[in-house]
Amino acid sequence: MRIIVDAMGTDARPTPDVAGAVMAAHEWQYEIVLVGRKEAIDTELKKHDTRKLRLTVINTTDEILMADRPSVVSKEKQDSSMHIGMKLVKNGEADAFVTAGNTGAAYAIAMLNTLRRISGVKRPALSGIFPIDRQPIIFLDIGANADARPEWLSQFAVMGNIYAKNALRITAPRVGILSNGEEEGKGNQLVQEAGALIAQLSLNYVGNVEPRYILQGGVDVVVSDGFTGNILIKTFEASVRYLTGTIRDELRADVFSSIGGLLAKPAFKRARRRLDTSEVGGAPLLGVDGVVIICHGSSDERAIKNAIHQAARAAEGQVIDVIRQELAISTPV
Amino acid sequence: MRIIVDAMGTDARPTPDVAGAVMAAHEWQYEIVLVGRKEAIDTELKKHDTRKLRLTVINTTDEILMADRPSVVSKEKQDSSMHIGMKLVKNGEADAFVTAGNTGAAYAIAMLNTLRRISGVKRPALSGIFPIDRQPIIFLDIGANADARPEWLSQFAVMGNIYAKNALRITAPRVGILSNGEEEGKGNQLVQEAGALIAQLSLNYVGNVEPRYILQGGVDVVVSDGFTGNILIKTFEASVRYLTGTIRDELRADVFSSIGGLLAKPAFKRARRRLDTSEVGGAPLLGVDGVVIICHGSSDERAIKNAIHQAARAAEGQVIDVIRQELAISTPV
Repeated sequence: MRIIVDAMGTDARPTPDVAGAVMAAHEWQYEIVLVGRKEAIDTELKKHDTRKLRLTVINTTDEILMADRPSVVSKEKQDSSMHIGMKLVKNGEADAFVTAGNTGAAYAIAMLNTLRRISGVKRPALSGIFPIDRQPIIFLDIGANADARPEWLSQFAVMGNIYAKNALRITAPRVGILSNGEEEGKGNQLVQEAGALIAQLSLNYVGNVEPRYILQGGVDVVVSDGFTGNILIKTFEASVRYLTGTIRDELRADVFSSIGGLLAKPAFKRARRRLDTSEVGGAPLLGVDGVVIICHGSSDERAIKNAIHQAARAAEGQVIDVIRQELAISTPV
Repeated sequence: MRIIVDAMGTDARPTPDVAGAVMAAHEWQYEIVLVGRKEAIDTELKKHDTRKLRLTVINTTDEILMADRPSVVSKEKQDSSMHIGMKLVKNGEADAFVTAGNTGAAYAIAMLNTLRRISGVKRPALSGIFPIDRQPIIFLDIGANADARPEWLSQFAVMGNIYAKNALRITAPRVGILSNGEEEGKGNQLVQEAGALIAQLSLNYVGNVEPRYILQGGVDVVVSDGFTGNILIKTFEASVRYLTGTIRDELRADVFSSIGGLLAKPAFKRARRRLDTSEVGGAPLLGVDGVVIICHGSSDERAIKNAIHQAARAAEGQVIDVIRQELAISTPV
């Protein structure tokens, strides 16, 4: 298993990126190629015990920033860690690429410069994986396609199902479509038309799912357009932050509550960890012709380590080949 | 101020409905007409001190259930509390109608049987009012129009702004459109086109708003299509429930945390109250030709009382007349 790690990805690059790569190499003996500014990577590597590890470094000169516009990056920063890393996957010299860098740039470089779509895929989807009651749920699309068509959502269901089975190792994943009500006939026009298409596929399809049902762990794969999916993810994150802040305020408001808050601190920590996505590490860009795992820019070394593990499992599960085969079957020409 | 209260609204009807009406009549001296099964209402009224209150009862025979389909209710249950109550508002015999009953039925009866649209309104919107850091934020649409057009969203902005000013008494309300990113150019096609229309209106328009920004209290009126708005509201509610449940679990997991949890109980209660929508009571169905305030089916008497106060403020603020005037100006023919 040979995995390329973008060393220039996180907001604190290359420190957590390199540390996570070293941890993953120790824990699972993966062969890892770090791509980015060699000098900076070497400085980081010296902080770790890297004997017995299969770690190499490839030097690149262009650096992609979070504020860079995807279209500009795609054309003007061709010696970036993303370009070089994805090219290695494209050429079969590596099994997967992991990055915590600018998502829009990764999407553009994958689609325009390097991997391109899997044959038969209409639109790739950006996914998110969230641990709900300790079980991963994969959402797609969470941002690549703000406007979508029913056929695209139908393909998202196929790709999400394959990823859940082959990479997340969930048996017979329950696939649902995000909707404003669970009864049949609910949903906007897109959801109704996409739902009808997905119902015809050979999936364990549970139909319309509401946010409540998702958070009760009733489903493993949730399909939506990229606009609504993005709103759902961001509302979940903002709500958790808002409620946590409200509780923190109130715990400080009187003496008994303050003492109670101190005693209960380990419980709060555990609750927070149960919502923490760094256990999952990252989520795939599904539909491009190679395994690409995208992590949050704020990822720490543990998130990077787990994302590398994600990438390895996706490669082992032959997610790309299976998507190619299944789409050839399920997509009417 | 004469307000009609649907006594057959809540899940526990008519107990909280009648109790809330009595509380509102005591607190603000409103004249209140209770509509529903007279016998049941009279039984409830006997539990309260109603001397000096201006309370009357109108008997109706049909009862609308939560499971009833709106189209059926509209035709077949014409002697329901909703039909009779809204007719009284339509005929100018009352200033507002408050109900905690089936939302779809209320929408259908308002639109098809009784109040109908305000002249110039393309589509009425269902709104939700949430207290964020103790300030009300009005969201619309949260469910009436799963598919929407840019011009409808532009009218939602006008109506929401008027409600925020005249009923919620917010000076120069900040109006935003729900989007997947705050930069200009973000959003799906609907959001981009609607945003361009809203920017041309004379509003305190802040542009695209993300869920995080909304929950930081950065905006007073949030406009969206009814599908996305519904997903946002439901995700917020489900996330609060999920996080609360996770914390409760973890507080029970060890002895110190349990003690801490007990000590901090008042703080948790206060946090929960800050998220509690019964302080607001209900939210308007905006665009129909009369003040209609819709409450959650699970409303308690305090929520009903506050919804009645909402209704009075909307009537005092002449929300309907102002909407009629402003839409005549802002809508190109």
